[in-house]
Amino acid sequence: MTSPFSFSARHIGPTSDDARRMLESVGYSSLDELMDAAIPEAIRWHEQLSLPAAATEAEVLAELRDLASRNQVLTSMIGLGYYGTHTPGVIKRNVLENPAWYTAYTPYQPEISQGRLEALLNFQTVVTDLTGLETANASMLDEATAAAEAMTLARRSSKSKSNVYAVDGDTLPQSVDVIRTRAEPLGIEVRVVDIERELDFEYFGLHVQYPGASGAVRDHAALIQAAHAQGALVTVAADLLALVLLREPGAIGADIACGSAQRFGVPMGFGGPHAGYLAVRAGLERSLPGRLVGVSRDADGNRAYRLALQTREQHIRREKATSNICTAQVLLAVMASMYAVYHGPNGLRAIARHAHDSATLLAAGLRDGGVELATGRFFDTVTAVVPGRAAEVVTAAAENGVNLWAFDADRVGIACDETTTAADIAAVWAAFGVSGVDSVETGTFAFARTSDFLTHPVFRTHHSETAMLRYLRRLSDLDYALDRGMIPLGSCTMKLNATTEMEAVTWPEFANVHPFAPAAQTAGYAELIGSLEDWLAELTGYDAVSVQPNAGSQGELAGLLAIRAYHRSRGDLDRDVCLIPSSAHGTNAASAVMAGMRVVVVACDENGNVDLVDLDRKLAEHAERLAAIMVTYPSTHGVYETSIAELCAKVHDAGGQVYVDGANLNALVGFAKPGKFGADVSHLNLHKTFCIPHGGGGPGVGPVAVRSHLAAYLPGRGEEAVKAISAAPHGSAGILPIPWAYVRMMGPDGLASATAHAVLAANYVAAKLRDHYPVLYTGNKGLVAHECILDLRPLTKATGVSVDDVAKRLIDYGFHAPTMSFPVAGTLMVEPTESEDLGELDRFVDAMVAIRREIDAVAEGAWPKDDNPLVNAPHTAAMVSGDEWTHAYPRSVAAYPGGMDPVGKYWAPVRRIDGAYGDRNLVCSCPPPEAFA
Amino acid sequence: MTSPFSFSARHIGPTSDDARRMLESVGYSSLDELMDAAIPEAIRWHEQLSLPAAATEAEVLAELRDLASRNQVLTSMIGLGYYGTHTPGVIKRNVLENPAWYTAYTPYQPEISQGRLEALLNFQTVVTDLTGLETANASMLDEATAAAEAMTLARRSSKSKSNVYAVDGDTLPQSVDVIRTRAEPLGIEVRVVDIERELDFEYFGLHVQYPGASGAVRDHAALIQAAHAQGALVTVAADLLALVLLREPGAIGADIACGSAQRFGVPMGFGGPHAGYLAVRAGLERSLPGRLVGVSRDADGNRAYRLALQTREQHIRREKATSNICTAQVLLAVMASMYAVYHGPNGLRAIARHAHDSATLLAAGLRDGGVELATGRFFDTVTAVVPGRAAEVVTAAAENGVNLWAFDADRVGIACDETTTAADIAAVWAAFGVSGVDSVETGTFAFARTSDFLTHPVFRTHHSETAMLRYLRRLSDLDYALDRGMIPLGSCTMKLNATTEMEAVTWPEFANVHPFAPAAQTAGYAELIGSLEDWLAELTGYDAVSVQPNAGSQGELAGLLAIRAYHRSRGDLDRDVCLIPSSAHGTNAASAVMAGMRVVVVACDENGNVDLVDLDRKLAEHAERLAAIMVTYPSTHGVYETSIAELCAKVHDAGGQVYVDGANLNALVGFAKPGKFGADVSHLNLHKTFCIPHGGGGPGVGPVAVRSHLAAYLPGRGEEAVKAISAAPHGSAGILPIPWAYVRMMGPDGLASATAHAVLAANYVAAKLRDHYPVLYTGNKGLVAHECILDLRPLTKATGVSVDDVAKRLIDYGFHAPTMSFPVAGTLMVEPTESEDLGELDRFVDAMVAIRREIDAVAEGAWPKDDNPLVNAPHTAAMVSGDEWTHAYPRSVAAYPGGMDPVGKYWAPVRRIDGAYGDRNLVCSCPPPEAFA
Repeated sequence: MTSPFSFSARHIGPTSDDARRMLESVGYSSLDELMDAAIPEAIRWHEQLSLPAAATEAEVLAELRDLASRNQVLTSMIGLGYYGTHTPGVIKRNVLENPAWYTAYTPYQPEISQGRLEALLNFQTVVTDLTGLETANASMLDEATAAAEAMTLARRSSKSKSNVYAVDGDTLPQSVDVIRTRAEPLGIEVRVVDIERELDFEYFGLHVQYPGASGAVRDHAALIQAAHAQGALVTVAADLLALVLLREPGAIGADIACGSAQRFGVPMGFGGPHAGYLAVRAGLERSLPGRLVGVSRDADGNRAYRLALQTREQHIRREKATSNICTAQVLLAVMASMYAVYHGPNGLRAIARHAHDSATLLAAGLRDGGVELATGRFFDTVTAVVPGRAAEVVTAAAENGVNLWAFDADRVGIACDETTTAADIAAVWAAFGVSGVDSVETGTFAFARTSDFLTHPVFRTHHSETAMLRYLRRLSDLDYALDRGMIPLGSCTMKLNATTEMEAVTWPEFANVHPFAPAAQTAGYAELIGSLEDWLAELTGYDAVSVQPNAGSQGELAGLLAIRAYHRSRGDLDRDVCLIPSSAHGTNAASAVMAGMRVVVVACDENGNVDLVDLDRKLAEHAERLAAIMVTYPSTHGVYETSIAELCAKVHDAGGQVYVDGANLNALVGFAKPGKFGADVSHLNLHKTFCIPHGGGGPGVGPVAVRSHLAAYLPGRGEEAVKAISAAPHGSAGILPIPWAYVRMMGPDGLASATAHAVLAANYVAAKLRDHYPVLYTGNKGLVAHECILDLRPLTKATGVSVDDVAKRLIDYGFHAPTMSFPVAGTLMVEPTESEDLGELDRFVDAMVAIRREIDAVAEGAWPKDDNPLVNAPHTAAMVSGDEWTHAYPRSVAAYPGGMDPVGKYWAPVRRIDGAYGDRNLVCSCPPPEAFA
Repeated sequence: MTSPFSFSARHIGPTSDDARRMLESVGYSSLDELMDAAIPEAIRWHEQLSLPAAATEAEVLAELRDLASRNQVLTSMIGLGYYGTHTPGVIKRNVLENPAWYTAYTPYQPEISQGRLEALLNFQTVVTDLTGLETANASMLDEATAAAEAMTLARRSSKSKSNVYAVDGDTLPQSVDVIRTRAEPLGIEVRVVDIERELDFEYFGLHVQYPGASGAVRDHAALIQAAHAQGALVTVAADLLALVLLREPGAIGADIACGSAQRFGVPMGFGGPHAGYLAVRAGLERSLPGRLVGVSRDADGNRAYRLALQTREQHIRREKATSNICTAQVLLAVMASMYAVYHGPNGLRAIARHAHDSATLLAAGLRDGGVELATGRFFDTVTAVVPGRAAEVVTAAAENGVNLWAFDADRVGIACDETTTAADIAAVWAAFGVSGVDSVETGTFAFARTSDFLTHPVFRTHHSETAMLRYLRRLSDLDYALDRGMIPLGSCTMKLNATTEMEAVTWPEFANVHPFAPAAQTAGYAELIGSLEDWLAELTGYDAVSVQPNAGSQGELAGLLAIRAYHRSRGDLDRDVCLIPSSAHGTNAASAVMAGMRVVVVACDENGNVDLVDLDRKLAEHAERLAAIMVTYPSTHGVYETSIAELCAKVHDAGGQVYVDGANLNALVGFAKPGKFGADVSHLNLHKTFCIPHGGGGPGVGPVAVRSHLAAYLPGRGEEAVKAISAAPHGSAGILPIPWAYVRMMGPDGLASATAHAVLAANYVAAKLRDHYPVLYTGNKGLVAHECILDLRPLTKATGVSVDDVAKRLIDYGFHAPTMSFPVAGTLMVEPTESEDLGELDRFVDAMVAIRREIDAVAEGAWPKDDNPLVNAPHTAAMVSGDEWTHAYPRSVAAYPGGMDPVGKYWAPVRRIDGAYGDRNLVCSCPPPEAFA
């Protein structure tokens, strides 16, 4: 009795008939034959994967429900950066559970991303308004990594010669851990001190927090003045909700603010994902890491949003980048921004007031019962002193359904939030053995905010559910995501994010768990994470995996730090050279620098492969200093380099470790294992190969996988390892049900089949387009791996039509553009993935062929070089239906090229965007309504 | 510690500031003052409603989770028309949980409903292909009401003089119950017999079923021939999934087929909602009740879909209508059609085969263990004979997690389905005390289908989840629903369908419960339904409520049947006259006829009110025969008639009962109770006043509410009552969490506030538009109730611009049209509801004013009468961006009137549709692909 349908038939686009037709075009008779030809035998894995056989969607949902039932959801009053919050239903359903939002890609094509760019601009406005600083990005991976980025930002911007970073002793412990992790390889000394009494040394930067981990709210204005006097910069870590009521960091002179937007409607998710934030005062905006949304204008002069100051990105700056952060937390930042839009300033005040009043009542009851409080002024959190009784109180509270936090044997932290009820407070009182009080006067406090915030109309309009729903629909309709059509990006694997994979994410048993909840309450998560780590190890051939890194960039850093620790454990203190091929993703170099390494570039040969001669040269040159090589496999050129095993051996012989970037793992799963063909460590991108949706630019998850000799150096796993690479022990645990379900439903055969179909699709596109655009690099037998690079340079030279023109013209044809000019300027990289069916692949091929004919028309002079459908693309509805039409080609060619069906056409909402204009005139928060006129 | 936010502030659109401004426009200083002026004091309810105080969204979700936990979800193998099914995740999330689908209205404006019309055409194609009949509608309320409609269709079409309807003894018991309910008032005699042995009498129609309730599959071809020989029509009730493998009804000569599409991916939901189906052979299509989607063409000659043969609708035919069915089950029909699209014919074959193979294995194990089977040939269901042990076996199975069905003390029914697992079968075997078999040969059977089905490409294309997702997105993007903007329909109350109200509907504990599951397993449902019935009684002032009627039309019929039974119980056998005002909704008259009554029309006076003089005349004329009066309150003219209490008294004095149609209850809740001001019975529309979404044309729920003297006549509640008005005991129980949550979250004050805001909004629109379009009828102090009628007739007479032109032009402005020409031809009726905020109301007012200026331009001759933006509306993107433009007005006026923002504009996908062309050339299934050329 087998189930009628396997999930893999839903995940993989082409039917077997379609695959046969595609194989014919490529010149092979079977998928096996194709894969045998494409993948070097030297790395080929021929054994069966040791994974459970594929389960059906219904079976997997049942298993997930069982795992969920093994998580116990108590009311969390633990605090420490993670709070209960009510996700408004309209936001949960229409953002977090809506493919129009969650399957979108990073807004690198801003013309078709105006909806989420507006949402992210709202996010930035929320952060700047609440922090009182001028510029905020959108967004950071979590509060702890934001705090670490603030430290390096301070380092870059401070004039102080000191290498000491002073940290407030009342900082969240996970933030301290990540700050330490990041500081050590950079030679920064971190001193965690009682800042009110022990700050008697020189430092280049100071990190303070309010409310503190203990809940204490202190006024740091004087300290900030003193810090500035010695040329230091000051970062304030601040809870966004608290800032609704408290004096904002900008008002007391902070240079930088950081924190989390989790409690703005984003479930705790056992640690993530949530949007961290980072904001800076005027003058620092160009040093801000991460993605920044800004206002600019389009070809018609209309306002348009796009990512600003992109020159800061790692793919351009490489080892000179200011940070390796790449993926943001877009989906969660959108949720948080919408929470602010929906509640508005008055709603946020009521929520903040509720949290504060709850804490005030709770504290009064404790005091009334004779419990000493360590916290003087507080917002929502108090610390109670119960000498020797902390564990007992925490246990009693848990029995009453409430989790508290024992700082040590004597002190218990209790945090209130939006969700706190009278019953919760009563449960806490009972746990302390006090009887409580009926009510309490709540007044204002000394450190209160006096400035207004969220004055922009967008925060004062959408307060009914109907209005909110329509705002969400309107914005999502402006964007192009996987639910409209193919996103054929090279290197980003935009495959199906199946509903069944997504389902469990919003179940309360996964969503509403605090990352520091007692292990006894999180057995379901433990089993899910354990089996996922085991499966990933099996799939990659490594011995140990940590899912803690909450983005690929963090996985890279964790991997490199493991290599660093390994060398140091062997007394190899000088090994600090990291070889990186010239074709590498820019993040690689940025991560190496952050890991305290020096980047040495290895050349590529004319076929795009690592030049083994140059490698030998570099190995000889840096033999004693060699730490590692970082390569991507298949290469960023989309090719299975045949020399990979040889390359690994050479590096090992030279005493180096091999880091294989797992970005392209979708071309390997089931067919080759990096951990078996010579690599020592990899990070994986669960948002690429393992179906976590891109969310419009995050969340990502970047587990680090290592061979056994590096296992002790995974984050938090050994004495010589870093304590934390991300804030939460299991990173973005809340979305791990997605890859878990994917592996579980595909099974070993399905996963391998997905790989083969991905390779087939890329080779099919290459075969079909080769005559129209040269395919730049190929490997064995002229095959590409899972993606192919189309070379536009000769056409551009001949006609002036650029990759940009082709990319934007594809929008008119109803497509997201491929990756532009990476890894080779002037080219397009196409990764169709296994999830696109033959109909969609052919639609893309036809569009590209039609565009080639349009380029030819320009070449032949049929259309002027400065007025043709390519250079004017994308065309908006407003343009093609304007009363005037003065172009050299008819409206129908502009609007419905290639005879496309006008019905249901997706229209770009703006024309081509002038990014440089916006960079010169930087505006990164909601423009005032006057600007709309 | 109160929660920061009440739900009512989310549900009600205008803020208190906005409401103040609106009151000013209307000329009142407070909502209280407005309501005092609007509602006649004679009916005003001044006491506090006895309902629980409003709960927050979070509290209600917690309460619903608690109720859910009190339903026990066992594997259902009960069968009897309700089966386990896997709702594909992509369909659940993107249809059932997607406001773009569930907040849409009935496709009376076909130009902005092409997406769901295509989905419904697919549904009709599924039904016609699987039944082998020519024409199917979309859709019926459930299988039982479909069976009853088939009976009356046969009655209308048969040439036989007999009044006997013969029914197969192996018919679903609930179908027999509803057939009997419908037959009795019409004077039809129903004979339920063993059709193979007892069919020795004359009859006008024959109802057979295969597979039967017992599971038996018999070939009725010979019986059908015999029936035809005596001039009778034959209905075949057939399980759609079974027809994938079995000979189709059309192939054995059936005239009519009926059944349910539930197991095509629609959860059981404790009985509903699901789509029933009805199909007929060629020649009967114009007698088919319910909504029929057909293919036609638009003003540009492009293919376009719309509701066909609308002249059959009750609002036109009134007492001559062939049925009172009005609401269909669109959302569920869409789901079922998408299930067929996603699985395709091969997928459906595999699923049907799985069910059959499961039953075959199960039967073999039982036989092997010595259990006698009563079923010879079967599809998925067998009946086991266990003399005296049936209850014991059922109990044992339930202990093993499986529900079976005890037909009586000796016979146990066991149904397999898509979800049946080996473990389920083993559990059944264990319950019977047999050890089972390992495997069994499954061959073909004698009554197998030989024809192909679902050959249209739409059923052979969207089989990957990615493709399916995009098809759903594409179709929903063609439509206009509440998530885009206002749907200002008169009489249909298109208010917010809040996410929190919708959430529980798809929880497994509510979704996966069989309507005949043991009461011990459904305590949560029982409590929810009980409290909802109590609350509805309190809100309406009645003494008893039944939620069984699964549409307003069924509630009407149930109410009228209660009146009929009451009169008969008192020996008043001749009371059969039902008075109906001329302004009534057509369904009223149709229902009266179905309840065996004669309709006598009462005139309205020039103010639109019931003419009390004419009423007196009619009462006198029909005194002895008077059964009831049916009035709508507030009237269908949108006015609080001041004479309602007097009217009720007059009818009571004449010995009649008063039926108040609850369609307009949204203008009464909290301010007046029909059960207290003189009515004896009402039906309510939970999909109007109580927030069940319209689903694009259903589901609806139409509870019947009565005063105590009628309580014994509610469906199934007394010996003199009808046994069933709908198939399931609690009708569409699966969506009752929606109104439950609404009442619970609004509380008594919130509900009254909603009413007041709805009345305010209607009066605001009337005040703002009065100078541009006369408001046809008003009541007290010139006020309207919750809706207003705008009279276009003078303008039409002067300019030729019709209500159609204005309605279609509103599409260009980004609105759904108001109700057209009901209740008065040549007018528009606008019901803004309380959920629209002031911004949206003003946008509508501005659009209507701008349109008035356009009409003036036509009047002034600025634009020709046959070429202006009104007569050409709606304008498609293809039209306004065409290479040619020959109209008398510029493209910008066509596309972006009133200076609207071009960004994100909703475009109608087709131009105005020629309905008559499609009616003359009736095509009601997917047109062949050649037609696309």
